[in-house]
Parts: sequence; C-alpha cells; structure tokens
Amino acid sequence: MNTIPTIDYARYDHIRPIRWMGDALELLDQRKLPFVVEHVLCHDSDAVAEAIHALTVRGAPAIGIAAAWGVVLAAREVQAADGAAALVMLEPALERLNASRPTAVNLAWALARMRRALATAGADWKQVLALEAQAIADEDLAANRHMGALGAGLIAPGSGVLTHCNTGSLATAGFGTALGVIRAGKAQGNIARVFAGETRPWLQGARLTVWELQQDGIDATLIADSAASHLMKTGAVQWVIVGADRICANGDTANKIGTYQLAIAARHHGVKFMVVAPSSTVDMNTAHGDQIEIEQRDPGELFGVGGVRTVAEGIAAWNPVFDVTPGELIDAIVTERGVILKPDAAAMAAAFA
Amino acid sequence: MNTIPTIDYARYDHIRPIRWMGDALELLDQRKLPFVVEHVLCHDSDAVAEAIHALTVRGAPAIGIAAAWGVVLAAREVQAADGAAALVMLEPALERLNASRPTAVNLAWALARMRRALATAGADWKQVLALEAQAIADEDLAANRHMGALGAGLIAPGSGVLTHCNTGSLATAGFGTALGVIRAGKAQGNIARVFAGETRPWLQGARLTVWELQQDGIDATLIADSAASHLMKTGAVQWVIVGADRICANGDTANKIGTYQLAIAARHHGVKFMVVAPSSTVDMNTAHGDQIEIEQRDPGELFGVGGVRTVAEGIAAWNPVFDVTPGELIDAIVTERGVILKPDAAAMAAAFA
Repeated sequence: MNTIPTIDYARYDHIRPIRWMGDALELLDQRKLPFVVEHVLCHDSDAVAEAIHALTVRGAPAIGIAAAWGVVLAAREVQAADGAAALVMLEPALERLNASRPTAVNLAWALARMRRALATAGADWKQVLALEAQAIADEDLAANRHMGALGAGLIAPGSGVLTHCNTGSLATAGFGTALGVIRAGKAQGNIARVFAGETRPWLQGARLTVWELQQDGIDATLIADSAASHLMKTGAVQWVIVGADRICANGDTANKIGTYQLAIAARHHGVKFMVVAPSSTVDMNTAHGDQIEIEQRDPGELFGVGGVRTVAEGIAAWNPVFDVTPGELIDAIVTERGVILKPDAAAMAAAFA
Repeated sequence: MNTIPTIDYARYDHIRPIRWMGDALELLDQRKLPFVVEHVLCHDSDAVAEAIHALTVRGAPAIGIAAAWGVVLAAREVQAADGAAALVMLEPALERLNASRPTAVNLAWALARMRRALATAGADWKQVLALEAQAIADEDLAANRHMGALGAGLIAPGSGVLTHCNTGSLATAGFGTALGVIRAGKAQGNIARVFAGETRPWLQGARLTVWELQQDGIDATLIADSAASHLMKTGAVQWVIVGADRICANGDTANKIGTYQLAIAARHHGVKFMVVAPSSTVDMNTAHGDQIEIEQRDPGELFGVGGVRTVAEGIAAWNPVFDVTPGELIDAIVTERGVILKPDAAAMAAAFA
C-alpha cells in the first residue's frame, strides 16, 4: 500500500449542493447545471420531498442529508412537550419524505436516525433534531474523506479510471464517494487518466461530473456510455469506480442504470471494479439484489435533451434508473469502515453485522 | 426451421433515403429526422462525398449505394472514348468518395465494383456506370429481403429482440439488414417484443429506428444504451440483432459503438447475438478486427443534442463511432448467401473464399 500524502481538502469545498440557512434549506438546482447555477429555497418539508423527487437534489448521500433537514423544517410547525410526542405529529411528514425516492437506502437510513434521536429527546427536541441533521452531514463528509484515502490506496501508479453518474460533492456532503477516491488518487499521483460516462438519460456524468472535476483542475474525458467496453479493450482503464444507492447483505449493489453493464464489461476485460459508499448505504436487511425496488422514471427522460425532443411522438420507452450489480462482479467495496475485497455474505456480515 | 410466410414487401417501401433523379441524387436528410422530412439534391460527386461525410446519408449499405451514384454524377463532367480512359479521369472523384468515411467496407466495395465495370466498358461507359449503380441498389434490396427470411428463421416463437443503431430502410436500399430480420420476424409472428437502444451519441435508434418501425405499425420500446444488461437480466430479450460496417475474415465485426458491449452482455446472460449484413460488408482481406480503422468523429457530438449544449466548455471527449465485436461473441452471421453459425476463420473461408 502506498503512503497517502496529506490532501488539502478545503480546495474541494467550493461546491455546496445543500446548505442549512437556519430557517430554510438551500439546494443547488442540479437540473440546471452546468450552465445555470441557481439555488432553490425550501421552507417546509414538503418542498424538500418535492425537490428530492424532482432531482433538484440527487445522489444517495445527498438526499439522505436533505431529508434530515426536511424533518427539521417539519418540526418548525409542531408544538410538542417532548420528542416522543413530536414523533407522532411528524409522522406524515416523515412518510412523505421517505416516499420521495425508493431505491437509495440512505434516505430511509437518515430518517430512521432522525426518528431515533427524536424518540428519546426531551423538551429541547427541536434542537436535538437540528444537531442530528448537522451530524449526518458532517459524518458524511468525514466518511468521504476517509473512503477517498482507502480507495486511492488500492490504485497502482499510472492507472486509468472510469466513473459513472455523479458521485462527487454534488451527490454528498462534500468531496464525494467514487469521485472522492478519484480526487484522492489524483492528489496522490497514482491516477493518470480519468474517464466519465455521460450517464443517459439524465446525463449526470456529462453535465455534473466532468464539470465538478474541471473545478478542481482534474481533466476528465467524457465518453458515450456504450463506448466503455471499447475503451477497456484499449487498456486505458484499470479501475471502474462507482458509488451506490443500496448495498445488500451479500454485496449486491444497486446503482445508476448502466453500472451493471460496466461491471460485466470490466470482468470481461480484467478491469477491476470498485464501489465506494458510506456505511449508511449498506442495508443488511436486504439479503440480495432481487429484493431491491428499482425506480422507474418518466419515459420522457429518453425523448429528448434540454427541452429538445429527438424522438417521434407515440413511442414507448423503458426507463429504469438503477440496476443491480451482483457482488461477485465487484472487486472492492469501500466504506468509511474499511475495504471489503471480493464481497460476499460472509465478508459483509463480518464487517457490518 | 419454421415456414416463412410470404411477406408483403411493398408495405416497407415508403421510406426512400436515396433516389436517383436522372441528373442528380436525392438524399433524405437523416440528420433532421424524425421531425423534419427534408431532401438534399446532390448535383456532383463532391456533394455526395460531403453528404456521406456529414451523415446526411448513413448506414453501411446506403453509403455504398450513394457513392456509386456519386460516380455516375462525376461521369457527367467527363468526356472519354471508353471506360478505361474515363477511369483515369475519374480517379480524383473516386478517391474523394472513398475517403468520405473510413470504417464501412461497403463504400470501398461499391467503388471497386464501379471501377471494374468501367475498366471493360466501351463507348457506352456512362450508361454502364448508371446500370451498375442501379444494380448495386437493386441487389442490396434483394439481399435484405432474403436475409430477413433467413434471420427470422433462427428466432423461436415468443422471442424478444434488442437492436442497436439504425439498420432499416434508411440505412440500405430498403427493408433493412437487422431491421429486415425484425420486420420478417414480426410478419412471421415469432417476435413478441422489440427493444431499440437509443445509440448515443447520434441517437440513430431514438431518432430513426423507432420511427421507422412505427411507420410499419411495429411497436418498439426505446431504452438507454446502458439499460441493455438490466433488460437482458429480466429475460425479456432472446436475441440481440445488429448490422455491420465490416466483417473480417475471422468473423470479427465492426459496427456502431456499443455493439461490442451488447455482445459481451448478451454472452453473459445467455442471450443470442446475430449480425445481419450483405456479403458486400464482408472483407476477406482484413484478417481480424484489430486491422480495422475505427472512425473518430467530432467530440462535439457528445456535448449536446439538437443544438442544446449540455456539457461545460473546455471538456475533452473521446468519440469513436464504431467498435469491433470478436467473432467468438457472435452466434450467427446472416448474409444473403446464408447463415454462418459460430463464425470463425474456417467457417468464413468456407462461405466467402
């Protein structure tokens, strides 16, 4: 393992997708990036739920953090003597937040954590909620920095990496999961080439990832998602590095549509495959990937780009936005608790039971 | 093998991408479909070469046919006593046409055929050229109809199929190669489900294929290219059916970027993989796929859609528009000469030497 040089993390702090304003939650509108940098202010929890559903904020860790602040906003409307009493009154808001997106487990995880904090809180329950939301965000940032170092330690000098979707500051409390590993690997000097798939249909790679990396002075080369296998065949890529929306008890991993295809192609070419996600993404209550609900989004996402329709009227489309990569196609799962090589049920149980 | 019912081919004749007008070549501008149906008139061979380069006309068989008519247009400017004399004078035009796109061998094949016809022609060499161009187009249509029946004969009742790019009437003299098999398989009743990948970056699947099939009353479901593996895992697809731009002496096949990835995914899932192309696409002088020049197009094709830019300025992109699928990942190559199962150098030599 290489020595990891100290990283100047502050230089990665300039992109802030989620900011608590004291009486409202400010979200960077990710639907409009990279050309329009616009913020949306959410004054109540329903606005947060709608922002999560509409992808104003996206990325599994980020939607967990946003939902936690949504609970804090919901609490502003409630009068209750203690946390237990408040919990009853907050139930509808908690359920609406929980239903805003189905696949990423971080959302349910963050809300469960808010519930637990509330259940034992006394008269100062509103302050307890706010501190818990802040802790969720702070711990996510700390986890990302730690995972960055752990993941970068797996990468040999001179390596090329390919990532998918957006897993950077925009998708988290900062630094990023898979993009955190890429940032750390670049700082460490071992990553020689970075490629990003454009990530149809929503183009998170094309719109967000290459832009985020550009802000850091990291050159990334954009490719069509379907060019990944041809790229691997050239030998330019040694690792595929992706995030996750849910990691099951056997290592099966739900992530952005196309991840599974990259894992199959990586194995075919002897390219290594790394999943990077905080332990809040691990769901030991889901035994395997077939039990994960895969979100289907509007087929209209395939009918055009940026308001320009490219597909004839009357056409049907199938638009699952996640898929499941079996644990056996994954070489390493990196969480802030450590690296799991060749994940399976036994290795996962040893780390997370 | 099933009995193939007689197909009413005339119902597939309404889309005509290439039409000889006696003194000019009319091309359906495929860059503007499906919303704008506009034709371009080419009055000289340079205009044809530019139309091929600019993708006004695309599809390996179609660009071969267009180039043949380009030679007929070039001949209009030339005075010569016989074909051999004309050939010398036409050399610059032939070379410009040949250089208009590098990967598809049909282009070079059609031009070689025009050269051969010319070399032995007498004083009526202009008429010989026109007849040869018409024969190339007519034989392509006949080949497609025959391949449709041959390929459809491989498909079991109740099958789902996935295609990539556009291989229909728009890409050929009519009926199509892979899309011809799908048309025949639908007419025969064995194909229950048709899926089409959108085919980034140029969106041939999204803009052209589903539109073409819609004209025939064939419902096709559009998917993101990266959703193909997830689709295969559901069991909805039994065959991937694609065209080709060049088939090597060992069965290695160059086709639209993303084809190779589909072949890897198909093999992983036990889905069969069929390549459909006229024998003019077979290049026995190219031993294997590594010898094929892969066309790189403008990275700008990845920066947006329909004039709407989605990627920040200053980003690099890698845009190979073809890839090579090794023969060992192909279950069947269908040409008008017959079906080659499990193609390799021996099977290809037996069929084409």
